Amino acid sequence: MENKKIVVALGGNALGSNLVEQMISVSDAVKPIADLIEEGYEVVVTHGNGPQVGVIQDAMTLLSRENPEKHPHFPLSVCTAMSQGYIGYDITNKLREELLDRGLAGNVACVLTQVEVDPQDPAFRHPTKPIGPFLTKEEADKKAMEKRHVFIEDSGRGYRRVVASPEPISIIEIDTIRALADAGYVVIGAGGGGIPVFKTENHHLQGAPAVIDKDRASELLAEQLDADFLIILTAVENAAINYGKPDEQKLGEISVEEAKKYIAEGQFAPGSMLPKVEAAVKFAESKPGRTALITLLEKAKDGINGKTGTRIHA
Amino acid sequence: MENKKIVVALGGNALGSNLVEQMISVSDAVKPIADLIEEGYEVVVTHGNGPQVGVIQDAMTLLSRENPEKHPHFPLSVCTAMSQGYIGYDITNKLREELLDRGLAGNVACVLTQVEVDPQDPAFRHPTKPIGPFLTKEEADKKAMEKRHVFIEDSGRGYRRVVASPEPISIIEIDTIRALADAGYVVIGAGGGGIPVFKTENHHLQGAPAVIDKDRASELLAEQLDADFLIILTAVENAAINYGKPDEQKLGEISVEEAKKYIAEGQFAPGSMLPKVEAAVKFAESKPGRTALITLLEKAKDGINGKTGTRIHA
Repeated sequence: MENKKIVVALGGNALGSNLVEQMISVSDAVKPIADLIEEGYEVVVTHGNGPQVGVIQDAMTLLSRENPEKHPHFPLSVCTAMSQGYIGYDITNKLREELLDRGLAGNVACVLTQVEVDPQDPAFRHPTKPIGPFLTKEEADKKAMEKRHVFIEDSGRGYRRVVASPEPISIIEIDTIRALADAGYVVIGAGGGGIPVFKTENHHLQGAPAVIDKDRASELLAEQLDADFLIILTAVENAAINYGKPDEQKLGEISVEEAKKYIAEGQFAPGSMLPKVEAAVKFAESKPGRTALITLLEKAKDGINGKTGTRIHA
Repeated sequence: MENKKIVVALGGNALGSNLVEQMISVSDAVKPIADLIEEGYEVVVTHGNGPQVGVIQDAMTLLSRENPEKHPHFPLSVCTAMSQGYIGYDITNKLREELLDRGLAGNVACVLTQVEVDPQDPAFRHPTKPIGPFLTKEEADKKAMEKRHVFIEDSGRGYRRVVASPEPISIIEIDTIRALADAGYVVIGAGGGGIPVFKTENHHLQGAPAVIDKDRASELLAEQLDADFLIILTAVENAAINYGKPDEQKLGEISVEEAKKYIAEGQFAPGSMLPKVEAAVKFAESKPGRTALITLLEKAKDGINGKTGTRIHA
């Protein structure tokens, strides 16, 4: 029998907000992943890049500001590519070490991954994801004029660029990821939701000014790999209804129908638990036998074994 | 019969010195590579990262300077990982497009690659590898004071920072690259000479403060992949003896022995043609039937077909 396949989506909380934090956090984060591999699962790891791509774009913006003629502008897609190197290096390295320490094969491979998005996606008309440095109103207005970036006033701290978070349509490197996973590699792919690209005339892929939600990209990847499980790791052990109220109720084993009912009731916070539950539902209903799990990183194995977490299935 | 394998090392001149230049240069650079693939060769592409890793480290240093508590220091190894994303994305994307435009399979895969170096390598005591932008003497002196970086005057073009360039010992992700190449993928790997790492206690890999020469890393990769050809692309069509003198003589087909004689005579400029010829000799003498080629990017196919370039064989 073939090994069961799992796509594990590592959240920002598993990566820390700077390099030092990341190196510590990732050392811990790889342990529960190694547990799954040790249990015999075929594992593909994805990760977010929200803070990291912001840091990288901050740095590149400082460079552009210092010498705009030499370094005109670093598009967001390029910054996401850089973040795949920045984060992927660390995860690859530490996961390999953890596996070898356990006497397992250390064959971990990080694949640069592009993900197609639609230029007509309504998200491009309503950018919502803040990235990059805080600017004054004057700086923001100037950039808005020059580059057609969109800025919002962010919590009294200044103006920040907001970018689109479009729906992922296809994973350009899906065959590469599948080939390596089938060959027994633990693959790190679609980092930061993937480098967002538009398909244009001929076969050209044009970098898109966007950051794809990593849970959505992970869901698509899990579907395309015909995975059995999608694990969305987050900062809580379970999703909950009536969250923060006296009658708060943690969700364990629930059906797609129940999950949809709770979504319709507005039980999950947009930009936080909602996209995770939506991705979980999409995966669970995509084919019989598929289960999506939302839980804490350190509970991944217990969750897979049905002991905890919010498990959504058809 | 199996297809002949080629490792192609793209030089800095094929990448440009900033993002805009890179995007233009890479569009051209992928054409001769696609020619080789179209001829039926199995191709693995490596690339330098000298200017790019310098730019990335400059940017990250600006960020550290602005907020040293939040962003203490970005090691050179992490900057190389980022440069693999930065450059690899562009090459992957444009090569895929070129192949699909020709009706070929567009299966190009970029693999994050670590390369082992020895902490006792004497290179760490004598940094020689130029990275980053060309500076004036004043700028270089200022940075040398501020950051304890070492600078050298580079071929009359200005001052550049130099870092250690140790010998590559092993390619950590060699099996991944081989698996994908064997499965028919055009692989981009060991970018920037690979992320330099030390093997330490247990299975830990520690990032090394170095930039590995991409020609040496390419040579090791070519050996380990059992390639038939190593192509080192550079800014001249042929290596030459008595370079720049009235009796300058371009080198065509030469033996390992001839090449070694010219090396001993000091015919090749250290940090420029010398490491290329050395890498070529090492590959050519590593196993019978292996040929190393040094030539212009646009002459790669003619070189492979024996029409031009400096070809070194046993």
